[in-house]
Amino acid sequence: MKIAVVGGGSTYTSELAEGFGANAAALGIDEVVLVDPAADKLAVIGPLVQRIMRRHGSRARVGWTPNLDRGVDGAAVVLLQLRVGGQSARIRDEAFPLECGCVGQETTGAGGLAKALRTIPVVLRIAERVRRFAAPGAWIVDFTNPVGMVTRALLDEGHRAVGLCNVAIGFQRRFAGLLGRAPADVVLDHVGLNHLTWETAVRLDGRDVLPELLKEHRQAVADEVDLPEAVFADGLVPSYYLRYFYGHDAEVERLRTAPSRGEEVARIEAELWDLYQDDTLDRKPELLSRRGGAYYSEAAVALMRSLLTEDGAVHAVNLRNRGFLPYLPDEAVIEVSARVGAAITPSARATLGPRQRGLVSAVAAYEELGVEAAVRGGERRVYEALLAHPLVGQHDLAEGLTRRLIATGRDHLPWA
Amino acid sequence: MKIAVVGGGSTYTSELAEGFGANAAALGIDEVVLVDPAADKLAVIGPLVQRIMRRHGSRARVGWTPNLDRGVDGAAVVLLQLRVGGQSARIRDEAFPLECGCVGQETTGAGGLAKALRTIPVVLRIAERVRRFAAPGAWIVDFTNPVGMVTRALLDEGHRAVGLCNVAIGFQRRFAGLLGRAPADVVLDHVGLNHLTWETAVRLDGRDVLPELLKEHRQAVADEVDLPEAVFADGLVPSYYLRYFYGHDAEVERLRTAPSRGEEVARIEAELWDLYQDDTLDRKPELLSRRGGAYYSEAAVALMRSLLTEDGAVHAVNLRNRGFLPYLPDEAVIEVSARVGAAITPSARATLGPRQRGLVSAVAAYEELGVEAAVRGGERRVYEALLAHPLVGQHDLAEGLTRRLIATGRDHLPWA
Amino acid sequence: MKIAVVGGGSTYTSELAEGFGANAAALGIDEVVLVDPAADKLAVIGPLVQRIMRRHGSRARVGWTPNLDRGVDGAAVVLLQLRVGGQSARIRDEAFPLECGCVGQETTGAGGLAKALRTIPVVLRIAERVRRFAAPGAWIVDFTNPVGMVTRALLDEGHRAVGLCNVAIGFQRRFAGLLGRAPADVVLDHVGLNHLTWETAVRLDGRDVLPELLKEHRQAVADEVDLPEAVFADGLVPSYYLRYFYGHDAEVERLRTAPSRGEEVARIEAELWDLYQDDTLDRKPELLSRRGGAYYSEAAVALMRSLLTEDGAVHAVNLRNRGFLPYLPDEAVIEVSARVGAAITPSARATLGPRQRGLVSAVAAYEELGVEAAVRGGERRVYEALLAHPLVGQHDLAEGLTRRLIATGRDHLPWA
Amino acid sequence: MKIAVVGGGSTYTSELAEGFGANAAALGIDEVVLVDPAADKLAVIGPLVQRIMRRHGSRARVGWTPNLDRGVDGAAVVLLQLRVGGQSARIRDEAFPLECGCVGQETTGAGGLAKALRTIPVVLRIAERVRRFAAPGAWIVDFTNPVGMVTRALLDEGHRAVGLCNVAIGFQRRFAGLLGRAPADVVLDHVGLNHLTWETAVRLDGRDVLPELLKEHRQAVADEVDLPEAVFADGLVPSYYLRYFYGHDAEVERLRTAPSRGEEVARIEAELWDLYQDDTLDRKPELLSRRGGAYYSEAAVALMRSLLTEDGAVHAVNLRNRGFLPYLPDEAVIEVSARVGAAITPSARATLGPRQRGLVSAVAAYEELGVEAAVRGGERRVYEALLAHPLVGQHDLAEGLTRRLIATGRDHLPWA
Repeated sequence: MKIAVVGGGSTYTSELAEGFGANAAALGIDEVVLVDPAADKLAVIGPLVQRIMRRHGSRARVGWTPNLDRGVDGAAVVLLQLRVGGQSARIRDEAFPLECGCVGQETTGAGGLAKALRTIPVVLRIAERVRRFAAPGAWIVDFTNPVGMVTRALLDEGHRAVGLCNVAIGFQRRFAGLLGRAPADVVLDHVGLNHLTWETAVRLDGRDVLPELLKEHRQAVADEVDLPEAVFADGLVPSYYLRYFYGHDAEVERLRTAPSRGEEVARIEAELWDLYQDDTLDRKPELLSRRGGAYYSEAAVALMRSLLTEDGAVHAVNLRNRGFLPYLPDEAVIEVSARVGAAITPSARATLGPRQRGLVSAVAAYEELGVEAAVRGGERRVYEALLAHPLVGQHDLAEGLTRRLIATGRDHLPWA
Repeated sequence: MKIAVVGGGSTYTSELAEGFGANAAALGIDEVVLVDPAADKLAVIGPLVQRIMRRHGSRARVGWTPNLDRGVDGAAVVLLQLRVGGQSARIRDEAFPLECGCVGQETTGAGGLAKALRTIPVVLRIAERVRRFAAPGAWIVDFTNPVGMVTRALLDEGHRAVGLCNVAIGFQRRFAGLLGRAPADVVLDHVGLNHLTWETAVRLDGRDVLPELLKEHRQAVADEVDLPEAVFADGLVPSYYLRYFYGHDAEVERLRTAPSRGEEVARIEAELWDLYQDDTLDRKPELLSRRGGAYYSEAAVALMRSLLTEDGAVHAVNLRNRGFLPYLPDEAVIEVSARVGAAITPSARATLGPRQRGLVSAVAAYEELGVEAAVRGGERRVYEALLAHPLVGQHDLAEGLTRRLIATGRDHLPWA
Repeated sequence: MKIAVVGGGSTYTSELAEGFGANAAALGIDEVVLVDPAADKLAVIGPLVQRIMRRHGSRARVGWTPNLDRGVDGAAVVLLQLRVGGQSARIRDEAFPLECGCVGQETTGAGGLAKALRTIPVVLRIAERVRRFAAPGAWIVDFTNPVGMVTRALLDEGHRAVGLCNVAIGFQRRFAGLLGRAPADVVLDHVGLNHLTWETAVRLDGRDVLPELLKEHRQAVADEVDLPEAVFADGLVPSYYLRYFYGHDAEVERLRTAPSRGEEVARIEAELWDLYQDDTLDRKPELLSRRGGAYYSEAAVALMRSLLTEDGAVHAVNLRNRGFLPYLPDEAVIEVSARVGAAITPSARATLGPRQRGLVSAVAAYEELGVEAAVRGGERRVYEALLAHPLVGQHDLAEGLTRRLIATGRDHLPWA
Repeated sequence: MKIAVVGGGSTYTSELAEGFGANAAALGIDEVVLVDPAADKLAVIGPLVQRIMRRHGSRARVGWTPNLDRGVDGAAVVLLQLRVGGQSARIRDEAFPLECGCVGQETTGAGGLAKALRTIPVVLRIAERVRRFAAPGAWIVDFTNPVGMVTRALLDEGHRAVGLCNVAIGFQRRFAGLLGRAPADVVLDHVGLNHLTWETAVRLDGRDVLPELLKEHRQAVADEVDLPEAVFADGLVPSYYLRYFYGHDAEVERLRTAPSRGEEVARIEAELWDLYQDDTLDRKPELLSRRGGAYYSEAAVALMRSLLTEDGAVHAVNLRNRGFLPYLPDEAVIEVSARVGAAITPSARATLGPRQRGLVSAVAAYEELGVEAAVRGGERRVYEALLAHPLVGQHDLAEGLTRRLIATGRDHLPWA
């Protein structure tokens, strides 16, 4: 069984390698291939992945190649973790919306749309090669942001894809800690859209303990999601990303002074690459944990196992709505705890309140328009998507952001 | 047949009187009674209404009373056009949201919620008396803002109510002018929520001429709705109230310098009362047209006729959604062109795009929470409604606005 | 020797009574008279002051009266600590500027101007009575905000007045604590305008230890002034009030959520009045320290001693510039450490840098225009003063603030 | 007599050539040399200048060279009109301040500081070569923005320099038009700092007609300066650049939607270069008037004549304050109408009111700190200058702007 990692030259990949190594037998991995246009990065990260997997005792073959067709050839699972334009594009995504007083963020708002617009065409081209060269019935697992929109674009084109996010697994670990239980004992109801989710139940031996958990650990939860308690006094715990909505202006103020996340990550990555030069290194460096994407490897490996073995375990994944949230179109892509067996079916109950429902509906409408803009192009579609976004919503802003998005992103926009 | 006008001491009532007078025979009006706690206002406006109706040749009895039970006794239609707290409460509604950088407006945002919170309990008390004293099967026609929320509260309590707005009739007259046709020839598809509507078709002899109309009169339409063309380049024409959404920040800037609408109306009303002192006056003064509510009387009289005769004519009314917009709950109250016959059923097609759908969903969620806050009270419910509103949406703003709404509105909030 | 306290019905007065009591002999006080239009407050606070002074062993007569002429009759010192319009006017001053996105504060910006406009005419009327009835050569000591502008208005009319602020004494106590020395050992160079001052030297036995103090206690100083260290990395320590300038927008954000200072003080005052009802109480309650004005009594009593004995001690006072800051007009009123002997002459060196100089010049220009607006009245003068204020500075804001200032303050503006 | 134009490859130079050509005899010009590092631009603009001057009948030699030393060798006047970093640096200057909610402009605020920081070191290096190679007593005439700060830096280093701006000549032409008189009949009192000036008198045959002019043409003046009348109801007419102060937030809103001035100019310049390719062209194209800098050539040529002939004519120039505005340091550089004879002495009266005085003092303090930051470098000095600027003034903004200024401008900052 072969796994291909597209964007395998990323500093993230050592995290993945730990997961592949520890689970190689359970997953039946015969081969891991890293694919990346950056051959120089592969020359460093490839051997490191090999050493890490060897450290775990895995005998799986590890390969690396800038050739996409060869890389995905015969793969059973293709993991997408690419970043079109690199950190410098991200830094621009985080900066230009601020010129209009809007939050600069790489997965939502105008910055998220910019990323979607340059990423979706690339992902769709890759998926075409996967369709042609990968093993029959191969899965595409997307970890490339904005995961919801990328997954929707893949599904719209008929690919066998599922989107993955590490927010739910982070909550599971944190809640398990607060409850003094092993993570495996804790099953979440996680509902919404990618980066717009709420934990609506925390099941321990089948019983929902979220109300008690909130009673005893209200402040710890507030710290975790970086939002005041009032925001989840209705009993539904928003993800950390909701602060871009519930705390938008404060976040804009913060970004005016603080270095952007992209600048920080660029610094961390430079340090990581220094560490990676050490050709005796055979484990992911501690520093990687500050890179973001905590537990990503665990989430990814566990999901692959379920996809390959159809074991029916619960994962938080991105998939078609198909009536689960009745106020969204069937074709919308939602993120929800789901049993991954022969089919993938939501295990959570769809219990969002009116406040969540309104916001989810508005963002889902934006995502629909955003995917259309990414696939079909055109300034007018960009404007419509931005005007639909609850963090934009105004003509002047949509117009100014459209102009800036196209001006700063032109190099990666095929139609501009 | 008797009509009762609750809030009949308003300066608006002379407009209504023109409509009643001109249609008294067609409607079969035997009696009009104005009800208002302000007996001094009734003593002026009552005789004026009488003179206006006489001028039209009507022989219907005209009465006035501060006694609600007596006023609605035996009425077939009860028209609600009251303003709890008067213009001074409105002026406060328009000011306090600005302290938080939010638009101050009497029908939407925090100002609109303030109005809903103080109005709905009063309207529900009135409706109880209507249920008890009016004729069996009497209609309540609500023109009191926010019409959508007030109508929903009435329907939730089982009243036979319909909400009325003058936005659609205004568009009909304006479009008829642009098309060079009589208003009666023009039938609109008007869809959305009260003060959050779009004209989605303009039918002339059954054919939708909106695309041509927009092609030829794009600038005139932009002027009419006070929004740039880009906002309706998708072919759906938003009402003038959408500028509080699509032009929110510009509106806030404008309000910082300009006198508020409430201050202007207070000035106009003072002038109107001066004119009303003339006991030979027998027509509504020209000045009334600057008071707002253009064509209100025509819309109201025409709607009453359809309610009483079940003639199946098309009116833009507020009623239960019941599946018309599939992304809204059945219980939501929408505003839509509808045939008013034995039943009231939408005549428009539900063709809003994703951009409109997202916004309508978000505002409908706010309205649901807002009605709950009005009926059940409590700071927490006010906060939840505000946090759900797309023009608020942030914790800090919702908290600051909640505190201010309660502080400035306390006198009219039974639970505060 | 008689002292009159105008505004003696304030909750502050028990603080003053402690100072008078402890220093009655040294000051040679024969009589203290509290003057206040609120006779009911005097009936509570008068006996309390008497009990406090008795507790200190003072035999001075304590009187109270709503009659200004009788109260100041024969007084050697008249202390002004009044608040025209009470806390409710203050609460309005703190709210209306927020509608324009400007800080709401009672001593600076549009709120401070509102207070100046209603206070200066009242103070000038009082000063006329002092001129007529007080002892020849009597001093007016002004503690009424905005102290700089009020003092300037008094001096412009030829009164023998000096302005007092408690910022400098607060710094002296705090710095003494950090240095491990008695307050009396610490002499400050305090320079600027009222509520726009910097500590430019901290003298210990004649030597300036500010550089060392900043080196060792940088964070403690930052906490004290509620500003980041970068703001005083040039070695000049701004007062706490500078955060309304250097942290303006953050302060506006804070005020949007937090209850205003006036609302807090109103709550504290209500509690204080409850405590004051106890007719065995013979000391100021601990709670008073949360009322603001810390060390005010010590500063005031010490200053009176110097005024009466011409002992040449150093106090931070408000007086004419007369060339001390060469970039300000001679008639400007500055706040500076000064020796109070037969004459009052600055003891500090005028060592502000260009950054401070620019801000001080701009605010002094505002104060000149603001005093003119207070004395001569007129919407146009209010607008000019606001346009000159560095926290306003824009036409739209000045226009919107002028309209609101006059609308909310009309009752206390003789010319409006 | 030789004139050197540093930055002679600019599209502006054809405007200058018209002036040189028309006045070659009067000025006694023997030679004009254009100096520019861009040899390709010189190859186009040099021959064009030659053709324009020939068209005027001038026989002066026209040369061009990228070699600075050779270019200024023996020159009697060296005109500086360079743009370090070109339009792309300007476009960045106009964009980055918007990320912090501050106006993006190339001569004031954070954008103006960015330009000063990269320009002053280059200008000072050029001036050193002028000192060494130009004729003894040669004048440096600076038209490079920010003119006030550049001129100050030149004077601080002992150069014989004067700064020139085209604002005053623009007013003179406009006022002459309104008055129905020839421009030469109109003499202005123009007072302030570069791009922060007011017209305080308009002399016609020695008499000040500004009050009448404002009475009759108030709206025309408001249109000219793009500011509401209230801003100059005190009788002093601010320059167009004051709208960045008096209309700051509105300007920020405008910039969020509109293309930046730099983007527009870049477009115009591209068109101009197309026109300049025509080697029969012998006059400046009409299009140049939309490039900015109207009347620049007339102002520059007239000033040179006065500098060379000491004719005592009045020009608006940048020079040392030396007590003219008593609230500014002697070393400050002001912009004022002055007689240019054997000495250059202000002809205007220093009649600014308190409102102008406060703003001028604050900006002068910023300029002092800004020149120091340009000459000596260092993040800390940049921060201090920004914190001193009235359009910044806040710690968070100064910190965020400092970081961005250095990040976007690093290539041209020798110390960063």
